[in-house]
Amino acid sequence: MRIALDAMGGDNAPAVNIEGAVLTVNEYRDIDVVLVGDEALIRQGLGHKKYDADRISITHASQVVDMHESAAASIRKKRDSSIKIGVGLVKSGKADGFVSAGHSGVIMAASLLMLKKCRGVDRPAIATLMPAIKGRFMMLDVGATVDCKPENLLQFALMGSTYCKLVLGITNPKVALLSIGEEDIKGNELTKEAFGLIKASKLNFTGNIEGKDIFRGKADVVVCDGFIGNIALKISEGLAETILKMLKQEISSLSTGKIGYFMMKPAIKNFKKRTDYDEYGGAPLLGINGASIISHGRSSSKAIKNALKVAADYAMRKVYEEISVAIEDNLPKKGN
Amino acid sequence: MRIALDAMGGDNAPAVNIEGAVLTVNEYRDIDVVLVGDEALIRQGLGHKKYDADRISITHASQVVDMHESAAASIRKKRDSSIKIGVGLVKSGKADGFVSAGHSGVIMAASLLMLKKCRGVDRPAIATLMPAIKGRFMMLDVGATVDCKPENLLQFALMGSTYCKLVLGITNPKVALLSIGEEDIKGNELTKEAFGLIKASKLNFTGNIEGKDIFRGKADVVVCDGFIGNIALKISEGLAETILKMLKQEISSLSTGKIGYFMMKPAIKNFKKRTDYDEYGGAPLLGINGASIISHGRSSSKAIKNALKVAADYAMRKVYEEISVAIEDNLPKKGN
Repeated sequence: MRIALDAMGGDNAPAVNIEGAVLTVNEYRDIDVVLVGDEALIRQGLGHKKYDADRISITHASQVVDMHESAAASIRKKRDSSIKIGVGLVKSGKADGFVSAGHSGVIMAASLLMLKKCRGVDRPAIATLMPAIKGRFMMLDVGATVDCKPENLLQFALMGSTYCKLVLGITNPKVALLSIGEEDIKGNELTKEAFGLIKASKLNFTGNIEGKDIFRGKADVVVCDGFIGNIALKISEGLAETILKMLKQEISSLSTGKIGYFMMKPAIKNFKKRTDYDEYGGAPLLGINGASIISHGRSSSKAIKNALKVAADYAMRKVYEEISVAIEDNLPKKGN
Repeated sequence: MRIALDAMGGDNAPAVNIEGAVLTVNEYRDIDVVLVGDEALIRQGLGHKKYDADRISITHASQVVDMHESAAASIRKKRDSSIKIGVGLVKSGKADGFVSAGHSGVIMAASLLMLKKCRGVDRPAIATLMPAIKGRFMMLDVGATVDCKPENLLQFALMGSTYCKLVLGITNPKVALLSIGEEDIKGNELTKEAFGLIKASKLNFTGNIEGKDIFRGKADVVVCDGFIGNIALKISEGLAETILKMLKQEISSLSTGKIGYFMMKPAIKNFKKRTDYDEYGGAPLLGINGASIISHGRSSSKAIKNALKVAADYAMRKVYEEISVAIEDNLPKKGN
């Protein structure tokens, strides 16, 4: 597999991106990387690093997408951005997948525009993995489609389940619909209608799931619209940060606190590792004809490496083709 | 002020409810309590407790709402439930407000049906207080109105701001709209339209707020529809629980962990106090002609006491009247 990596995207680009590419080829025999971006900068960054030079190549891109520009304007004006060039490599078959820690709106727009949607898919979804008390779960959509129809949620369920089967190796993923009560009738207009559609599908549907239960690992795939998913994801990030900060405030006001904290430090480190974004790497953009993986802007080199692995697995298992098969296999039956 | 308290609602009723009533009259000179429910049980519960017998009275109700029954059926069939009788006391002027830790759907339906909406209000909202790194903030709606129009969100903003001014004493509450980005144009169809309406109002509107920022105390009032608000609230509860559980797992796997944990115990206790539902007491149902306060099913006697205080303040400041004034003062201007 050959994965294109946006060398210029993310808070610590290009250094961590280049480091991530090197880590990847040194760890995985079957993943080669194409670094996309400012060639001189990339060459300089690769410097004296040790790796098999045949397995990391460079494709020059003269422009960089700024995090604050509008996605539409960027797509129109920056024809030579590292994101457009990277997605273009997938389109032309020169790469099997694309990873970027840059502007997620531009990654999404470029992927949609150039790679097109999978056969049968109406709207794409960004899927993210989150830690549960036991294991982890996938939540989608977390921001690709903010205004959804019930059919979109059914398709998200099918896409998420397909991904979990093929990439995470979960045999019969439990799919749940994020709602305000476990009972079948609970929800808003959108989820009540989506409930019926998902229930009628061939998915392993476990019904509605409440916000308080998602972290208990009751479902492998949690489905919601992109507006709610994005808010849920960011509330989780914000709250985790807040809780650790509040605990630290309380600890530092104790006389025995510092010693206690010191003794507990390995525990807090392990906790952070379990909840660490780096471990999960990247969020796949599902429903696109190709592997397009969105990484967190704060990605470390390890997160980049994990995202490249996700892209390679995604491409190898041809997730996009299987998504079309799953959707065709679950088309709602038309009435007479 | 005379506040009716549902003696039968909540996981630990009637014991903690009765205890909460006693705590209240012993602490607040100006709050009398009417316990509503099974008279024999309540008399037994009051037993030898020390309090001014003139300030706690009992109104008998022969039925109890079960947590699992449908709100509509309960309202129709259980005419003598402690919730209906309690709300009836407010309606007839025999009480100034009502508190219940029982079935929130039934409390809401009975309040709407019997007390009616405030003048000018289209849909009610449940407002809850949540802890921030500094202070706390109000989020609404967290479950009363799951399918909203933009006008509903404007009214929620006005109701929340009015409550914060009158009950929490915040001079010019900062109001923000929960969305997926800080920029004005970010959001879904609903919030984008609501943004314009709130911006055109006389509120101290600070724009969109992202999920990760709500706990940073950037806004006093965070506005969203009842579906998202309920999910956000429950995710927060679930995640806080999960994080503490994960930390404990990590700590107990350490050799020095137990001593460290022991030394940090006061810090964890203080943290829990800061984030404790009991401190906040109850969530007011805004937009109803009267003070109707919904308490958590797990309420302790202290939470009940705090909820009774909220009801008394609410009634004393005539929040429901001021809500109508605020709405009339901010009617969107009609085009010519």
